[in-house]
Amino acid sequence: MTTLGHLIDGVRVDDAARTQELYNPSTGEVAGRVGLASRATVEEAIAAAQAAFPAWRDTPPAKRARILFRFKALLEQHADEICRLIGQEHGKIVHDARGELARGIENVEYACGAPELLKGEYSKNTGPGIDSWSDFQPLGVVAGITPFNFPAMVPLWMFPMAIACGNTFVLKPSERDPTSTLYLAELALEAGLPAGVLNVVNGDKAAVDALLDDARVQAVSFVGSTPIAEYIYGRACANGKRCQALGGAKNHAIVMPDADMDNVVDSLTGAAFGSSGERCMALSVAVAVGDAAAEALIDKMRARMASLRVGPFHDADNDFGPVITRAHLEKVCGYIAGAEAQGAEVVVDGRGVQVPGHEDGFYVGGTLIDRVTPDMTCYLEEIFGPVLLVVRVDSMEAAMKLIDDHEYGNGTCIYTRDGEAARYFADRIQVGMVGINVPLPVPVAYHSFGGWKRSLFGDLAAYGPDGARFYTRRKTVTQRWPSAGLREGSQFAFPS
Amino acid sequence: MTTLGHLIDGVRVDDAARTQELYNPSTGEVAGRVGLASRATVEEAIAAAQAAFPAWRDTPPAKRARILFRFKALLEQHADEICRLIGQEHGKIVHDARGELARGIENVEYACGAPELLKGEYSKNTGPGIDSWSDFQPLGVVAGITPFNFPAMVPLWMFPMAIACGNTFVLKPSERDPTSTLYLAELALEAGLPAGVLNVVNGDKAAVDALLDDARVQAVSFVGSTPIAEYIYGRACANGKRCQALGGAKNHAIVMPDADMDNVVDSLTGAAFGSSGERCMALSVAVAVGDAAAEALIDKMRARMASLRVGPFHDADNDFGPVITRAHLEKVCGYIAGAEAQGAEVVVDGRGVQVPGHEDGFYVGGTLIDRVTPDMTCYLEEIFGPVLLVVRVDSMEAAMKLIDDHEYGNGTCIYTRDGEAARYFADRIQVGMVGINVPLPVPVAYHSFGGWKRSLFGDLAAYGPDGARFYTRRKTVTQRWPSAGLREGSQFAFPS
Amino acid sequence: MTTLGHLIDGVRVDDAARTQELYNPSTGEVAGRVGLASRATVEEAIAAAQAAFPAWRDTPPAKRARILFRFKALLEQHADEICRLIGQEHGKIVHDARGELARGIENVEYACGAPELLKGEYSKNTGPGIDSWSDFQPLGVVAGITPFNFPAMVPLWMFPMAIACGNTFVLKPSERDPTSTLYLAELALEAGLPAGVLNVVNGDKAAVDALLDDARVQAVSFVGSTPIAEYIYGRACANGKRCQALGGAKNHAIVMPDADMDNVVDSLTGAAFGSSGERCMALSVAVAVGDAAAEALIDKMRARMASLRVGPFHDADNDFGPVITRAHLEKVCGYIAGAEAQGAEVVVDGRGVQVPGHEDGFYVGGTLIDRVTPDMTCYLEEIFGPVLLVVRVDSMEAAMKLIDDHEYGNGTCIYTRDGEAARYFADRIQVGMVGINVPLPVPVAYHSFGGWKRSLFGDLAAYGPDGARFYTRRKTVTQRWPSAGLREGSQFAFPS
Amino acid sequence: MTTLGHLIDGVRVDDAARTQELYNPSTGEVAGRVGLASRATVEEAIAAAQAAFPAWRDTPPAKRARILFRFKALLEQHADEICRLIGQEHGKIVHDARGELARGIENVEYACGAPELLKGEYSKNTGPGIDSWSDFQPLGVVAGITPFNFPAMVPLWMFPMAIACGNTFVLKPSERDPTSTLYLAELALEAGLPAGVLNVVNGDKAAVDALLDDARVQAVSFVGSTPIAEYIYGRACANGKRCQALGGAKNHAIVMPDADMDNVVDSLTGAAFGSSGERCMALSVAVAVGDAAAEALIDKMRARMASLRVGPFHDADNDFGPVITRAHLEKVCGYIAGAEAQGAEVVVDGRGVQVPGHEDGFYVGGTLIDRVTPDMTCYLEEIFGPVLLVVRVDSMEAAMKLIDDHEYGNGTCIYTRDGEAARYFADRIQVGMVGINVPLPVPVAYHSFGGWKRSLFGDLAAYGPDGARFYTRRKTVTQRWPSAGLREGSQFAFPS
Repeated sequence: MTTLGHLIDGVRVDDAARTQELYNPSTGEVAGRVGLASRATVEEAIAAAQAAFPAWRDTPPAKRARILFRFKALLEQHADEICRLIGQEHGKIVHDARGELARGIENVEYACGAPELLKGEYSKNTGPGIDSWSDFQPLGVVAGITPFNFPAMVPLWMFPMAIACGNTFVLKPSERDPTSTLYLAELALEAGLPAGVLNVVNGDKAAVDALLDDARVQAVSFVGSTPIAEYIYGRACANGKRCQALGGAKNHAIVMPDADMDNVVDSLTGAAFGSSGERCMALSVAVAVGDAAAEALIDKMRARMASLRVGPFHDADNDFGPVITRAHLEKVCGYIAGAEAQGAEVVVDGRGVQVPGHEDGFYVGGTLIDRVTPDMTCYLEEIFGPVLLVVRVDSMEAAMKLIDDHEYGNGTCIYTRDGEAARYFADRIQVGMVGINVPLPVPVAYHSFGGWKRSLFGDLAAYGPDGARFYTRRKTVTQRWPSAGLREGSQFAFPS
Repeated sequence: MTTLGHLIDGVRVDDAARTQELYNPSTGEVAGRVGLASRATVEEAIAAAQAAFPAWRDTPPAKRARILFRFKALLEQHADEICRLIGQEHGKIVHDARGELARGIENVEYACGAPELLKGEYSKNTGPGIDSWSDFQPLGVVAGITPFNFPAMVPLWMFPMAIACGNTFVLKPSERDPTSTLYLAELALEAGLPAGVLNVVNGDKAAVDALLDDARVQAVSFVGSTPIAEYIYGRACANGKRCQALGGAKNHAIVMPDADMDNVVDSLTGAAFGSSGERCMALSVAVAVGDAAAEALIDKMRARMASLRVGPFHDADNDFGPVITRAHLEKVCGYIAGAEAQGAEVVVDGRGVQVPGHEDGFYVGGTLIDRVTPDMTCYLEEIFGPVLLVVRVDSMEAAMKLIDDHEYGNGTCIYTRDGEAARYFADRIQVGMVGINVPLPVPVAYHSFGGWKRSLFGDLAAYGPDGARFYTRRKTVTQRWPSAGLREGSQFAFPS
Repeated sequence: MTTLGHLIDGVRVDDAARTQELYNPSTGEVAGRVGLASRATVEEAIAAAQAAFPAWRDTPPAKRARILFRFKALLEQHADEICRLIGQEHGKIVHDARGELARGIENVEYACGAPELLKGEYSKNTGPGIDSWSDFQPLGVVAGITPFNFPAMVPLWMFPMAIACGNTFVLKPSERDPTSTLYLAELALEAGLPAGVLNVVNGDKAAVDALLDDARVQAVSFVGSTPIAEYIYGRACANGKRCQALGGAKNHAIVMPDADMDNVVDSLTGAAFGSSGERCMALSVAVAVGDAAAEALIDKMRARMASLRVGPFHDADNDFGPVITRAHLEKVCGYIAGAEAQGAEVVVDGRGVQVPGHEDGFYVGGTLIDRVTPDMTCYLEEIFGPVLLVVRVDSMEAAMKLIDDHEYGNGTCIYTRDGEAARYFADRIQVGMVGINVPLPVPVAYHSFGGWKRSLFGDLAAYGPDGARFYTRRKTVTQRWPSAGLREGSQFAFPS
Repeated sequence: MTTLGHLIDGVRVDDAARTQELYNPSTGEVAGRVGLASRATVEEAIAAAQAAFPAWRDTPPAKRARILFRFKALLEQHADEICRLIGQEHGKIVHDARGELARGIENVEYACGAPELLKGEYSKNTGPGIDSWSDFQPLGVVAGITPFNFPAMVPLWMFPMAIACGNTFVLKPSERDPTSTLYLAELALEAGLPAGVLNVVNGDKAAVDALLDDARVQAVSFVGSTPIAEYIYGRACANGKRCQALGGAKNHAIVMPDADMDNVVDSLTGAAFGSSGERCMALSVAVAVGDAAAEALIDKMRARMASLRVGPFHDADNDFGPVITRAHLEKVCGYIAGAEAQGAEVVVDGRGVQVPGHEDGFYVGGTLIDRVTPDMTCYLEEIFGPVLLVVRVDSMEAAMKLIDDHEYGNGTCIYTRDGEAARYFADRIQVGMVGINVPLPVPVAYHSFGGWKRSLFGDLAAYGPDGARFYTRRKTVTQRWPSAGLREGSQFAFPS
């Protein structure tokens, strides 16, 4: 059994004094080990990034972008292998991994436009004979800390843009499924990134703290749960860094009485159970407006869920795979049990699902719970499992109040045909990413990803235009040339 | 003697359980008192702002901007009175106050462009039949904490834009010279701002902490010294807020051998001694490249400084006025003494200057110190007085290293006629605001103000385009309409 | 009776060799005369503009904008007088003139943001050590030719932005109602515009041709009818100029079966009859989808039109006033008669309306014609009178085809509550300005005004962001400094 | 000998009723034939483009861009073949063809950013409850007419962006060297462009006129000589189309007395003689300020030119190749003879150069002519050959006046080390593309290419951001939803 190391200054580095086991959630078996970087190893990575910075910052943006063009091609060429590595450690089905990778590649494509995105602002004559311009310069060494649920996509939200902007990068992927991430980084080097521009350290909190405390790290991007996001943001900021920390979610869909219910059920099914609900944009609460809508929704969901298939990652006929660990499986089942105990009605129960031939995999089946109320634990917390809650309300205003009162503000959706309802909802709801008949309103790569309330700490969102701003800092130059200079001289005209 | 109160929900509110004296630094006399708000008073202001938010956010941006158009006109109309109030409590000469106000008004002018600045990004067909747009929405209640040295300009950096973006505002000006600030706020109300949209609380650390800790405050803008900036940033971020905190400076000018020395001396004189050096953009260190440049600089500066006039604020013939307090006077003189003790050469000594008729005023004369070295206390710390240090180096690279090694990175300047030297300097120097033959490279209102290193904490600079981004948050909407709707129906065509 | 002259280089100039009468359409009486400029007078205006250009182009944009801030204030201060002058010569009711002026002032407000709008694009390191930036420079002398129907608004679409961009301007207003336009220009000079920056020549085709043929005129903006627009565009372009020429319209509203019919009728009434229909954005064709919608529409319109009041401009109780000339009155009535003759049904007939006390005024009452078909003359041509046609179709697709088949593509509207229908319509219809439940979708001043098809010739629309682009030209600078220059020299460090 | 056909609707189409010979200028031999399309064939291409438009416009921009990503990869993969085809028909040396292709590929890279470039402007609350957005929609069928001197680069300036914006394209390349252009188009189809999206017709004026007159063609981009540009612009505009027509040039470099003369000579050599001077950005006039500068320049140029190698395209050791035709060779030699006759001094004479083994090739050697004056024919007209003129003046102002007085305003350059001279020049010179120590200031692909004066007709420049604007038209939507709709209904809450 091999032990996964780190990627520092262009080479694989071992630091396996401490290690952690890597599981294949589809079988429940241990499939490998990953070394957990010491502070010294993290500092070595930071030093490599620091050393690579001066030459990289001076590389013309168009030339930096050209490496990303090649990186995109390599990602497409090696997509099968990347998706296999994702599936093996994370458990998501191959088509789902493909989707994740496609979304990640879109971020590479966007970063290819760096020369356009880095344009500064130029003002002639801010005063008589005075010009001023603002330039967006790279920060230096920046760090990314990414979660287990998107081992390819979330790193691709970060490092391509950071690097396109002229920074060098230290990435710490999740220690639960780091293999595909490390592979991506190696492809980036193969595409032509100079050694030290992109470094990967595997590790746990020790590595994170080393990144947060090192004065050479100028900025930190984080995606994970809200408690950790809050910790990262507080500590990075206390250390004077810029930081963006994306946390948890509880994404509601309002189902209006005029909604196209077949469309609702089709799209909710994917949004709630895809990737076992282990997505920060998973749609985990359906808010039915009126009992008629609720009844129709429940009936059709129950019917639709009968054909849902859960199983191992390599079988493309499955709709979704296992959850990430046995402990998480138990936590998810605990939420279902709690809901039942607190009075909700478990309409479809995914606990105890059996996958023949994979009895030790970490499987939870699709679960539908009706008559959930806002005081229940399953409603208040993020379950991160294939569980869809239904809350019933009497009016659209009540549905919106429910959403606005929740701690999180990542994504939300309304199902309606009515233009006015959609506009009212989108304008006022206190959530950062809003869908109108779109249950997973993940912004495309040329917009930016960011929740509101306790789903994001910081003032710039992830990727897209905000990403370019987060990874650069403004420098403003004001220029006036003394006159009476060469231009007006006459001595040169008739040299003796 | 009157006690200045607070401005909450459109009316003057007294909270004078604790007060502090207001001085006239030109005479050294106490001229009034200011009440120091309790936590309850601050919370009252926040509550007023919170209550005013929903209607203000829904007011069309063009209509909000129209109030700022009127505000600009009122500021121009009442400029004399504003400048008198500034001079009386701060000590700056009337022409300097005029300059401060003019710069402040430029920020109001920029905020008048809110409808343009708030434009979101619209993308048709992000997928088949799917549209996406990002909108920049106001945050809610935001707070500004401003310093004594620009009682009009720095508040005008903040609240006009914040308000133009649809936020409501709680401003805590410096407790040393709050009267002009409060007057500005009253003019804003006179211009048509609804009650509660702009509130002013006077106070000290208790008020600041109340703002930092209140969950209703979404964002904090601060300008002041670096230790306080660091405190504010850490505490605001730990509370999950967005924050921009601007701190101290030590702004160097490189004087190249080819510089137009008359231009250098003229412009340095204003940049070093104007406003008694109490500006975060004051040019406090001249770095002469080569002894020949140094000698020429010293000679011409000495001659130029002979005619410098220091005196009370109301006499427009003075070049600059007193410093803010007696304690600060002593601190500045202490730096001069320390420089002398550590081996520097005090070429022109401003200590013990006498202003006839104003013997108790807080005056320090223009001071020039040669042969300063980077280890001296006067070099390492921000003096914030009318003191210009000269450091001698052998090469431009050495001059740049000096600047880059300093803790602060607010402003800097190079004096040269050489295009290559200017470009090299502007590109590489680790400072946020760079002048080429411009010693005070304060960005115009349509660019943004921000230092690097320990001169600014946060990722967006103050005012200008960054201001508009800081005071808004992105919401991204993704929309798809189910087809088979009204449009395709045929039943309506031939009703029975 | 006075004869209106011209405004050249800051002074009133007479050139009245040829004159034309000015009518008061509300009474039908001649109220004055206007001189028609000779080619020499036009060239004098161009020469004045040319002479004023160099200093004006070098005036910092922020300073240029500050004059527009004052201009806005003067327009607001003199609004009553402006509206009286408009009403007297054009005939529109005072509230309508107020609306026109308000829309015009919004364009001045937008132009106040010139420093932001003129920002160029700055790229560091387009190659190693090479920087590039694009700057938007003024063109020089530009000309505007404006129509009778908006004597204040359309000139304000043009010259404030042109001037804010650093150009100088020659304006030729309509010779039918030039007095208010000339007054505006005088207020602009009062606000601080230097002489020669804005010039006004009154005149007819001779003046137009002089502007089109003069090599010093760099660009031409025109608003008027399509045949003239086509002539202007062809001739200006043949002379190598840039040109934008806005022409006629036939704006359709689709009334869907699900529309809120009360809202339809209320808003159509204003959009069809306001300003006697003499607006290029007037809503002149209602396309009812399904006979049920048609019947409801006709019934409610007939009822609503019973209370429509037509009368002289100074009576604010009137809904609309006379048309511009007696000849135009006869033309409008001719279209109504022609419709009747071709088989349409005149539901409400505005011909022969009597306004007591103003029997000689040029009045046509509100007219509603049902069962219009696409082959009728009244449908094919622009009537420019208070006449609303109703066409009946069976489906939304048929309604859209009708619109797309029409020669013009200025504005259009759909009335519906359905999100999908609205999106489909807005996406696909071949019209430049689209309303969803908004019958007069005139873009706000911070967007741009432009029709499609034969409603606009040119590639940039009027006012807003396109205006700023039309009135500037891009200059791109690429800069590399030879190294081995001053910076690397060591000789200066230790001068002998 | 084969006859080159056309590419219509995805297939090669023959129309060889009329043909023209294709030469290999390096040998002077006929190498093939090209069919000259009839009006019917052009109309067939337009019809194919028109038919392909609806589906292509509805293809999401990101998906369109993805085809361009593949196209870029194919261009890189087939670079050798493309450059061989260019060299064979045009004569430029392989390294020069490589440079041309690289520049062309940069435009494809830029067009890959279409999703960002096509973002519209979105404004919430332009009025109460009213939203407005502007969208940039494709035009339909657009045409490009390209010159012989860049058979790969100029087509790549046009069709990738036009297509990325959703238009379909008809390209008419130069009939002198169409083979490489046709090959590019085939690679674009191979990359995945649907049939009909990109069509190529070979032809002469008949084909051009067919494109200009067809009502289905919405816009025309042209690059060529000024007389043709003027003809195209006039005719396209008279037909109501939008048009950008780029014409000729006479690009001057000012050599200031402080210039780094080795750098001047190195860079001028490439800029004047590269591609035999057959570039619209070729540097054809050096303006020496002061006789000292002139003498130094002449001496060093003469020395440098001694090693210039002219010869056949396939030998990479050559500096440049033949001119395009024998007729053109004679024309260039005529200009040299004329200069001599009018009194200029031919310092280095390229007439009658012999290339062993290629005696019939169309070669002119590098030519340097001193003491040229502004009245000489060689100065007034564009030579388009390897001829560098030197004009001597006494001051920088005189040099600038020379440039501003010339009919053309494409590119220009100043050689200096002085910041003030550079800024003054770049700000004021009446030329669209300005170099500071850069003799060929061709803007990078993410800026735009456009001369001033008679070098460009139209208001938007070629490629870059202006390209995206030229190939789209603005549509502005204004939306208000009637309230009292579904949202406020209560009937659905408690269905009976």
